[in-house]
Amino acid sequence: MIHTTSRVLVSDLREHVGQTVSVSGWVNTLRLQRKMQFVVVRDHTGMVQVTHKRGGESDEIEAALEGLTSESAVRITGRVVDNPIVNLGGLELVPEKVEVLNRAETPLPIDEHTGLEQRLDWRFLDVRKRSSAQLLFAVQTTLEQGMREYAYAQGCTEMHTPKLMGTASESGAEVFKLGYFDRSAYLAQSPQFYKQMAIAAGIDRVFEIGPVFRAEPSFTSRHATEFTGVDVELAWINRVEDVMVFEEQMLTHATRKVADAHSEAIRETFGVEVTVPATPFPRITMAEAQEILRANGWDSEGAKEDLDPEGERAIAARIKEQTGHEWVFITHYPTSIRPFYHMRPADNPGVTLSFDLLWKGLEVTTGAQREHRHEVLLKQAAEKGMSAEPLQDYLNAFRYGCPPHGGLGMGLGRVLMVLLGLESIREATFLFRGPNRLTP
Amino acid sequence: MIHTTSRVLVSDLREHVGQTVSVSGWVNTLRLQRKMQFVVVRDHTGMVQVTHKRGGESDEIEAALEGLTSESAVRITGRVVDNPIVNLGGLELVPEKVEVLNRAETPLPIDEHTGLEQRLDWRFLDVRKRSSAQLLFAVQTTLEQGMREYAYAQGCTEMHTPKLMGTASESGAEVFKLGYFDRSAYLAQSPQFYKQMAIAAGIDRVFEIGPVFRAEPSFTSRHATEFTGVDVELAWINRVEDVMVFEEQMLTHATRKVADAHSEAIRETFGVEVTVPATPFPRITMAEAQEILRANGWDSEGAKEDLDPEGERAIAARIKEQTGHEWVFITHYPTSIRPFYHMRPADNPGVTLSFDLLWKGLEVTTGAQREHRHEVLLKQAAEKGMSAEPLQDYLNAFRYGCPPHGGLGMGLGRVLMVLLGLESIREATFLFRGPNRLTP
Repeated sequence: MIHTTSRVLVSDLREHVGQTVSVSGWVNTLRLQRKMQFVVVRDHTGMVQVTHKRGGESDEIEAALEGLTSESAVRITGRVVDNPIVNLGGLELVPEKVEVLNRAETPLPIDEHTGLEQRLDWRFLDVRKRSSAQLLFAVQTTLEQGMREYAYAQGCTEMHTPKLMGTASESGAEVFKLGYFDRSAYLAQSPQFYKQMAIAAGIDRVFEIGPVFRAEPSFTSRHATEFTGVDVELAWINRVEDVMVFEEQMLTHATRKVADAHSEAIRETFGVEVTVPATPFPRITMAEAQEILRANGWDSEGAKEDLDPEGERAIAARIKEQTGHEWVFITHYPTSIRPFYHMRPADNPGVTLSFDLLWKGLEVTTGAQREHRHEVLLKQAAEKGMSAEPLQDYLNAFRYGCPPHGGLGMGLGRVLMVLLGLESIREATFLFRGPNRLTP
Repeated sequence: MIHTTSRVLVSDLREHVGQTVSVSGWVNTLRLQRKMQFVVVRDHTGMVQVTHKRGGESDEIEAALEGLTSESAVRITGRVVDNPIVNLGGLELVPEKVEVLNRAETPLPIDEHTGLEQRLDWRFLDVRKRSSAQLLFAVQTTLEQGMREYAYAQGCTEMHTPKLMGTASESGAEVFKLGYFDRSAYLAQSPQFYKQMAIAAGIDRVFEIGPVFRAEPSFTSRHATEFTGVDVELAWINRVEDVMVFEEQMLTHATRKVADAHSEAIRETFGVEVTVPATPFPRITMAEAQEILRANGWDSEGAKEDLDPEGERAIAARIKEQTGHEWVFITHYPTSIRPFYHMRPADNPGVTLSFDLLWKGLEVTTGAQREHRHEVLLKQAAEKGMSAEPLQDYLNAFRYGCPPHGGLGMGLGRVLMVLLGLESIREATFLFRGPNRLTP
């Protein structure tokens, strides 16, 4: 009887030529010929050909291979043979034992022609079968690792702020409401209020990666009702510029880490070149951006306060042309389109000390210096027509010595989308959630 | 006019003796005497005494110091003077400029005699004023960093699974329900189903730290309605033992990292010695544990299937006595008290291939090998009286080649509680959420 050996990864097989090893993975392709049986087995590190000659001493193996189906989970124990004519690394596995750990039903519910929505219905198969999706999550892991490395080195504390809130503070409209024992609770649209509370709690620099929830009925390629947010909040800043410097350094560090680990794979799989950006990133005020865009025909009625996606793409293209840079900070957003807690410069209350960061024309971050003076905050909330009562817990944090601070919120999926040139946030997420999608 | 200089941390002041620097922090204590004004300013690295002689050339400074209140956020620019008779590091700051960045109202709503619930109402002040709370979040950061280091080194991919679910799959009772456009959604009680889906998606090893939600009306010192879960899921395991080995290695690595960075501070602040545990941790089956406990009078009616908290403490004490070890895996929980997706040994369907991990008698982890065979899973769900229909998306993941796998879910707050000897999970969380607490 052949015993199973401990698992060897496909990428390590070369070290085991002449030995009997066990490979665990999925049936990638089957070619069952009259005299020979060829099975390509795939694990997360690569593919190997299993080669079996029919009519040998072991009918059991022949029968087992004959019964295989595409995507079945198998463990093949066999001898590793050096065979230069085999395409997959010049190696093949001559099977001595075939175990079917989980047989896949046939036919598979999706194939390479299946459209996006149906692929999402069977996302586990979609991700398993496409090397680009596998690479995506490896890149996500490296990207986060890079951001954390930078944040930790800068003295950040990793916080986990609650997603359950007692009031729908930030704005009632886009918040999910849930039953909470005998009353209601709300899902946090962002860690905004709580990360500021952490600043008031004496945490010098706050870092959090976690889910955020938006009850927006948006069906664009860049919106989701639940997504992963990267949040930073920095105490004792002197100006909003301090936040932008932190962000560009963090992104440069993280992008370099991704480039070091995956640039070749990303080029091959996505056809995208990972460029480590130069710092500082270009900065342009909203007023300047609009002036340039209007001179080129954007918003001919002069009615838009914000940049629409078209405007974002156009200004990013312009900056790229002028500076060669893919990133740009748009600063000084009008007060009218920013939340009440953004600080305003003393000499110009019509704008805020805020920014968005665009990458290749897509907004990936919103940030600002926050208003930390209680009385000014009250005034700004009132001006926006907000009632102080549901904001009470938040506002209290500014009554007992809250330091000046500012921060940013970044959409992880959007960064991945641009990094890998994906067309939709649906592809940049493991299990996408939108107004029409709560499954699988 | 005195210009503000860039911020110097209190812990770095010694390097600046004789220079004029700016220190930013909170007013820790005020002693305003007839001839002298003493203000102790605290930042996240330490405390420094600001010493001002009244009646000097600068009345402005005297007035500014006179108007200070405890916990106000200030920036003091002044000369660093070496003065051996000063208690705080033998240094004092002679102020040249005093800026009140956010004046604290008086009196403060909490002081050192305030009870837990009211402290939680003002959690930002509670955390800010107590060095133990500051240390807690530093330890949390290091602990997570250590767990991630180990997980990454073992080839884990960091996943972010959705917290919004279309059905209340795992068990209807303890799930929060929310309005989701024109229908309902549910908050994930754990990433259980989705991390298994990631395994079916070909992710070899899954790691996630994120919020989990439990609609349990529990008021104990160790339950919360929202807490931070550490989740791991490993594909292609041979047995549940593989998961236990992963966990003990991960915890050993992370505890060592905490000990290296914080053991002295933890000893001083919490009076607790951080011990890096030896591996393997002791293992005992549930049947053995119950036999030992019953021989000592526990559960005299012989009615209990599970260990109650008293039983957990007693068995942990026994193991500690016998082996000196603070940790113990209880294995082979009865099928009746484990979920349908736990695998059962072929020769004994009355138990599961599962475990809990206790630390100093507190359950900090539940883990298991999962049943990956579709037909067995269907059978086990039916036996538990569960309807297959709401489980459909989950069950589909086992129809097309799901590999054998197992994993664990750990409560981060519980680990911190034991690590630092805290009496309640409320103290181990930044903003606690319980049936009666949704604020601040």
